[in-house]
Amino acid sequence: MPVYNPPLRDMQFVLHELLNVSDEFKALPKHAETDVDTINAVLEEGGKFAAEVVFPINISGDTQGCTLNRDTHAVTAPDGFKDAYAQFVAGGWPSLSCDPEFGGQGLPFVVNQCFYEMLNSSNQAWTMYPGLSHGAYEALHAHGTPEQKALYLPKLTSGEWTGTMCLTEPHCGTDLGLLRTKAEPQADGTYRITGQKIFISAGEHDLAANIVHLVLARLPDAPPGSKGISLFLVPKFKVAADGSMGERNGIYCGGIEHKMGIHGNATCQMVLDEAVGTLVGQPNKGLAAMFVMMNAARLGVGNQSLGLTEVAYQNALAYAKDRVQMRSLTGVKAPGKPADPIIVHPDVRRMLMTAKAYAEGGRALACYCALLLDKEVNHPDEAVRAEAAELVALLTPIVKAFTTDNAWEATSACQQVFGGHGYIKEWGMEQFVRDARINMIYEGTNTIQSLDLLGRKVLGNQGASLQKFGKQIEKLVKAEMANEAMGEFIKPLADLGQKLTQLTGEVGMKAMSNADEVGAAAVDYLRVVGHLVLGYFWARSAQIALKKLAEAEEEAQRPDPFYQAKLQTARFYFTRLMPETSSLMRRIRAGSDVLMDTDAALA
Amino acid sequence: MPVYNPPLRDMQFVLHELLNVSDEFKALPKHAETDVDTINAVLEEGGKFAAEVVFPINISGDTQGCTLNRDTHAVTAPDGFKDAYAQFVAGGWPSLSCDPEFGGQGLPFVVNQCFYEMLNSSNQAWTMYPGLSHGAYEALHAHGTPEQKALYLPKLTSGEWTGTMCLTEPHCGTDLGLLRTKAEPQADGTYRITGQKIFISAGEHDLAANIVHLVLARLPDAPPGSKGISLFLVPKFKVAADGSMGERNGIYCGGIEHKMGIHGNATCQMVLDEAVGTLVGQPNKGLAAMFVMMNAARLGVGNQSLGLTEVAYQNALAYAKDRVQMRSLTGVKAPGKPADPIIVHPDVRRMLMTAKAYAEGGRALACYCALLLDKEVNHPDEAVRAEAAELVALLTPIVKAFTTDNAWEATSACQQVFGGHGYIKEWGMEQFVRDARINMIYEGTNTIQSLDLLGRKVLGNQGASLQKFGKQIEKLVKAEMANEAMGEFIKPLADLGQKLTQLTGEVGMKAMSNADEVGAAAVDYLRVVGHLVLGYFWARSAQIALKKLAEAEEEAQRPDPFYQAKLQTARFYFTRLMPETSSLMRRIRAGSDVLMDTDAALA
Repeated sequence: MPVYNPPLRDMQFVLHELLNVSDEFKALPKHAETDVDTINAVLEEGGKFAAEVVFPINISGDTQGCTLNRDTHAVTAPDGFKDAYAQFVAGGWPSLSCDPEFGGQGLPFVVNQCFYEMLNSSNQAWTMYPGLSHGAYEALHAHGTPEQKALYLPKLTSGEWTGTMCLTEPHCGTDLGLLRTKAEPQADGTYRITGQKIFISAGEHDLAANIVHLVLARLPDAPPGSKGISLFLVPKFKVAADGSMGERNGIYCGGIEHKMGIHGNATCQMVLDEAVGTLVGQPNKGLAAMFVMMNAARLGVGNQSLGLTEVAYQNALAYAKDRVQMRSLTGVKAPGKPADPIIVHPDVRRMLMTAKAYAEGGRALACYCALLLDKEVNHPDEAVRAEAAELVALLTPIVKAFTTDNAWEATSACQQVFGGHGYIKEWGMEQFVRDARINMIYEGTNTIQSLDLLGRKVLGNQGASLQKFGKQIEKLVKAEMANEAMGEFIKPLADLGQKLTQLTGEVGMKAMSNADEVGAAAVDYLRVVGHLVLGYFWARSAQIALKKLAEAEEEAQRPDPFYQAKLQTARFYFTRLMPETSSLMRRIRAGSDVLMDTDAALA
Repeated sequence: MPVYNPPLRDMQFVLHELLNVSDEFKALPKHAETDVDTINAVLEEGGKFAAEVVFPINISGDTQGCTLNRDTHAVTAPDGFKDAYAQFVAGGWPSLSCDPEFGGQGLPFVVNQCFYEMLNSSNQAWTMYPGLSHGAYEALHAHGTPEQKALYLPKLTSGEWTGTMCLTEPHCGTDLGLLRTKAEPQADGTYRITGQKIFISAGEHDLAANIVHLVLARLPDAPPGSKGISLFLVPKFKVAADGSMGERNGIYCGGIEHKMGIHGNATCQMVLDEAVGTLVGQPNKGLAAMFVMMNAARLGVGNQSLGLTEVAYQNALAYAKDRVQMRSLTGVKAPGKPADPIIVHPDVRRMLMTAKAYAEGGRALACYCALLLDKEVNHPDEAVRAEAAELVALLTPIVKAFTTDNAWEATSACQQVFGGHGYIKEWGMEQFVRDARINMIYEGTNTIQSLDLLGRKVLGNQGASLQKFGKQIEKLVKAEMANEAMGEFIKPLADLGQKLTQLTGEVGMKAMSNADEVGAAAVDYLRVVGHLVLGYFWARSAQIALKKLAEAEEEAQRPDPFYQAKLQTARFYFTRLMPETSSLMRRIRAGSDVLMDTDAALA
């Protein structure tokens, strides 16, 4: 059976040494009191909850899956899911980073980010039930009427009710402009909504008393395409003005999908049959309102894959130390055993280090983004808020696509460490791989993320946002260029930064005469930028580790193995993972013709 | 529901235009009469069998899986599997390339290779039942006594009985030297075999009347390690001297594994309790005898992944033409539709072309190897046989590891084309990915394949075998270097060949002082050689296509779209897939220290 230990030490490193979050919080009035001890205490308790309550029902949830009663339209989650959710609510966990005005604890997003990483490591399928609520909460918080907020936000905050995002229809996923669900205005100011939605995660279940669906639909007079979409709040049970739950609304689960993974989460076909809803935000501006949810959801998907990378790594490491098979090529390492533990083999280390470097680098990136969100929302200086928002917008597609692609590689590598046992369900490794696969698809496929990055976030403003992030790299490079010990990290980072600048210019020029150049370059381009960003965090991590190790040496203390580990992992990252960029850049420069002149091949 | 159309046209291209097999057969007395029409007719019928009988039970077999009756130890395969197997036997398909001396049809291996590709495309799990028999057949054919051959080969040939390979035990997979199963000699010349085996594919099932297990075990006086292993024939039902089946032997299925994929194939824990067996080959030489099976099996595993790549490609292509979503970045392409078919998007084409290039390139490589096997076994000239054997030995780990890694990438890319639908079972795409995953693990993990290639097949003879293959590349380069139209293929191929020569020398030098350099380089090295080999076949394919297109132009005929497609796919391969080698070579040159100096990181 798999194991999971919350990576508290590395989270503390990222939060307190790399990002110095409590110093940053001093500038944010709402979080000025959030100190190191508070954060550590919350994460320690949160880690216990994840490892002790949610993790033990991960494999059983996958094996059992969800069941739909076709007569009652009721969905039952796997055994233990409901009870774990009740404990989650009783512990106050749903409200961690919610607004105190609606009953939240008002902790920073970056703390919630770490908590959710641990939940995702423990059980991605279970974590999607509360996770989806956050999106609904954010959309209502940003765009709801005072009445909607008063009625729904306290219940979403406490976790008594959960939320969903109802976007996709059978004929449209990426292209929401095609959606057909209709909303008919009623005399009382409500709407009657009719249509069919698919792929609705946590669309129906038995964990919470009510489910708050946020539904995209068209008003009768709406213009065609994406400019005619409005957002509606459609509760499973109607809610009276006093907050009491009334009769069942006309929104039902018509079927649940049988999927590759995340079996414990109900992926529902939802039928709306004159369901009563209320408008959220302005008519025909639903897509913009929904994007509040989608951006949060995209960061959340990156976090799912970060969690899976970490837990897959921990299990592969444990197995590699335990399993004995063959002798080291350089001579016997465990003479008392019939063979050496497989961790002596270089390629086993390659697979393990790949997962470790992506997990720890991904954690730094994800926390950095969450801290930017805290600044975007709470910093008193508008200019700081705006810059934070700009960087979050730039980094969101990278967190989503780069982290999830890396998790696919890393979880598969960790599965490979187990040999044949990695293919067998009881070891848990193959589930991590299957669960990780959806993260590259939902909330905008990774292709869509890459078009968002290259087309909108980079070429859309002539690289201005990218240059802002680049300034941080330049600063680091200047500060450390004379430091010989940092050369192995700084040089490749600076080199990649220069190459990316040139590459971006080339692609931008080509795209001016042929828009397909953007589509042809985008996926590889996102990975190049991803490596630049991750390289920055790995160089910063190495910088801190070198400093700490030097301090220990000066004071004749034993070096802390944690910092030695950071340094070794940084070295691995720069020599074994970042070099992927040379091939990616060659592929990008191959241009779009070789892709588009394929009509005979794809006939 | 997925579709499958046997790729007969491309098989004919590979067999008759690229490899000219019927010309080659003229030098092989046994196959001198095997002409183009015979081959095409067999493959056409074989394709029908695969697509019409085996393909329709692929998804249902995955959903249902196998069941074990714990009282009787009987395993029942999914519905339809037994009937399809009966049709397979009735049609004479098991005997296609078997020795006529034992009832076989004596057709070349390369024909059987193409037939099995189609079976694997249709249903990998089902195909493993007859597929495993081939390994047992080969081992008995090579090492069996006249009595063993007379008793068992006709039944394996006809398919009345199936075979297995019983190698792995709970504590040893890669490291067979650790195995513990015991064989006690009896007065009558038989042996009583006791022990436990795991991961035995098709170890127990209801498709055939008897199962012929080939079991590795130790004699009482055997030396420790891999030099003390012997091979035994252990039938499920004992067989009398007259060929009649007797009582049940002491070999039972004790459990079946729940796996990520290939659910339709029973992966069995086999308990041997004083099972009666006979020795195959010499005492303590079992591993060598087993390698006959394992090499065939490794080529077979590559073929499984080739089949999955092809079928995943076909379905993704069909979906990409049918599904409309978003408009082309360069303007509306399907004005009569609400959106353009997604095949207009460059990244969708990238995913499709990746699968196509790996499928067609992999087919050329696999058929080339199968033809070499035909020469190795049947060529009258010993020198030709020896050279064929040497090239097969070199290419076997490449076919196994490169093809299966590529299939993992390709099937996942094809799944991605489907967006959210790719994650749903009913579309079939996620099953291709799950099934493909095992191929990187069994019959020697891909890490083991890479060590076999770099350590034994390349450095083990100072690159002599690799140079033999390189001579063919040199010949092509010389022949075409003045041909401008071939430049885009010949130059990168020649360039990679030179770089590989230099790289091999570097790695060899470093390995002399540190054996871990082999383990650190091997996996990436195998991919570099894989690209050189595939690049050769793509350049050859382009050469033929250019010639055919030029001929058509000379004769003012319409160009055959098949050759245009080949050319486009070759261009894609050289500009988008082969460039991976530049990163791989950078990683290899990073050396082993960065992997092995990770004790703190992997503590």
